[in-house]
Amino acid sequence: MLTAADLPDVARGAAFLGAGGGGNPYVGRLMVELALAETGRTLELLDLSEVPDDALLIPTNMMGASTCIVEKLPEGMEAARSLQRLERHLGRRAFATMPVEAGGVNSMIPLVVALRLGIPVVDADGMGRAFPELFHETFHIYGVSGTPMVITDEHGDQALIETHDNFAMERLARGLTIRMGGVSYVAMYPMDGATAKRVAIPGTIGLCLLIGRTIREAREARTDPFDALERALAGTTYAVSRVIFAGKIVEVFRRTTDGFVKGTVRIAAVDAGGDDAGGPLEIDFQNENLIARQGAEILAVVPDLICILEAETAEPITTEGLRYGQRVRVMAVGVPPIMRTPEALAVWGPRHFGYDVEYVALV
Amino acid sequence: MLTAADLPDVARGAAFLGAGGGGNPYVGRLMVELALAETGRTLELLDLSEVPDDALLIPTNMMGASTCIVEKLPEGMEAARSLQRLERHLGRRAFATMPVEAGGVNSMIPLVVALRLGIPVVDADGMGRAFPELFHETFHIYGVSGTPMVITDEHGDQALIETHDNFAMERLARGLTIRMGGVSYVAMYPMDGATAKRVAIPGTIGLCLLIGRTIREAREARTDPFDALERALAGTTYAVSRVIFAGKIVEVFRRTTDGFVKGTVRIAAVDAGGDDAGGPLEIDFQNENLIARQGAEILAVVPDLICILEAETAEPITTEGLRYGQRVRVMAVGVPPIMRTPEALAVWGPRHFGYDVEYVALV
Repeated sequence: MLTAADLPDVARGAAFLGAGGGGNPYVGRLMVELALAETGRTLELLDLSEVPDDALLIPTNMMGASTCIVEKLPEGMEAARSLQRLERHLGRRAFATMPVEAGGVNSMIPLVVALRLGIPVVDADGMGRAFPELFHETFHIYGVSGTPMVITDEHGDQALIETHDNFAMERLARGLTIRMGGVSYVAMYPMDGATAKRVAIPGTIGLCLLIGRTIREAREARTDPFDALERALAGTTYAVSRVIFAGKIVEVFRRTTDGFVKGTVRIAAVDAGGDDAGGPLEIDFQNENLIARQGAEILAVVPDLICILEAETAEPITTEGLRYGQRVRVMAVGVPPIMRTPEALAVWGPRHFGYDVEYVALV
Repeated sequence: MLTAADLPDVARGAAFLGAGGGGNPYVGRLMVELALAETGRTLELLDLSEVPDDALLIPTNMMGASTCIVEKLPEGMEAARSLQRLERHLGRRAFATMPVEAGGVNSMIPLVVALRLGIPVVDADGMGRAFPELFHETFHIYGVSGTPMVITDEHGDQALIETHDNFAMERLARGLTIRMGGVSYVAMYPMDGATAKRVAIPGTIGLCLLIGRTIREAREARTDPFDALERALAGTTYAVSRVIFAGKIVEVFRRTTDGFVKGTVRIAAVDAGGDDAGGPLEIDFQNENLIARQGAEILAVVPDLICILEAETAEPITTEGLRYGQRVRVMAVGVPPIMRTPEALAVWGPRHFGYDVEYVALV
């Protein structure tokens, strides 16, 4: 069970797992708090192993520009309505919902749905971090169709989409989302419990809670949150993690293009006590941080997490939040094996994002 | 019943009724001819009055840039698949299909659907001409919901859309159509026979046949096709028609913007035997020809038809086909009363298209 007291920790952990992208979970957290208060329900978090093999799971999420969610506040039932419409189409009730993306704001949307509909949330997702598109999913990588999917806006306007593959689904849903004002609410990748056990990344909501709580407790105890994080992650499937650089942001180049925030941030070790012998660190991002390089050396690369954190508090900084002069530490985290198989790297490895380099797992 | 021999006449009449827009019916005509040959069926044209009040009608059409249909040839079943998907959603079979737009290529799409599915076509439509958007419909004007609607592309990818009003439907369907490559195939405005008798414009496929045949027969008999057209139209609900100008195109200003072809064509009477005392004729178009002015005087205005025809043959010229130096006659045609009520003018009168003038019916 998750309580209202846990939500700030989950949100912080989700921002960490977002690796710079996925949108700020703050508005999502407010939606969960409102749903908790209005429904009086408790938030039942279900271990993936507890889901019956024949139970229907319907994942839910927000789609679109995370900047829009702040300007165009959701009414609260949008994603639940998508799930209900998909239930009607399938002629079956959902046993539970689940995130498609544990990083960023989409960690929160299924919690809202679960509370509004009185169903549990499965503690698992299909990204294990944040990624920009609807086929960036272990669900997709391991053969689950994203459609039938339903997309709903704040007017209750809906579309039920069926496509021959998940790339067409992304293309059509993106066109609709733009016309819905830049943000929409989706129910997709319906699957049974047996399938979810095969294709989902287990425990990622719990991981958000662990990360967020570890950072908070280290602050409260006035100990180093980075050390605490490395120790805490060592006990998870995200076992390898370390601070790869510390310094000051000396340049941010950012442009919004094709619906993505693309750019580069340069971090110099000068005056921050870091080692600048190898030159500054450069991180390229496309919504999420994708590759961290020091000169010719690649220190970390997608799908491993590259998290830029405030140097003192370990608060995650999103790509939109990067500013000249910020003191930061950069933490790299290796992702679980299910996220770095050859099939997975074909969908979200460095080459998919335009980098002509091989993925080398963080060690 | 319509035969293959009638199709060139229907297509020519539909191009006339398009008033410069609606797309060239040629590709649509090829689709009908192929469907006639492949199915061996006959094309049953049903008078609106023959439709049982409780029969389900599902209109079908093409949506998008008519230029795209030529580059991306349809597979032939797209619109039929939209109709079938809507049948499944409604849990009822369609008694017949019907055009939403008798002008241009959309005169042909329901004929393809009817042949492919072995159902009749109702001789009526919801525009009585061509217009650019899905709410430019007597169906919309007189209270029918355009949704549930289904949109299908050449891959068989589909979306079933439900919206709170027909403007949202247009917005969402347009976004999908763009993502489908600029052209899609739609089933929409499902309604029963009683409703169709109240809201549809009757006899418009037959009108296309009459117009196209009249032009052809006048050419064959070497008589004036314009005189013949005026006489033929006098016996229809489009009773008032006349040539308002004759001359040579001396300027075409055309730009493609926001998905529309917008512009102005200027026609001078010099050397064409027309009367140039009042100066040249200027016609503004947004896909369709909207307003014809000579100096300050408005000779015809939307929703009345403004048709630019080749001076000798009376062949309709679409806005894309306008060229410097063409000898043309401009024919204006008054539309039936159902298309010029205050409710109708609010949707497609001159002000809707940005002209600060009152509609004055052609007399």
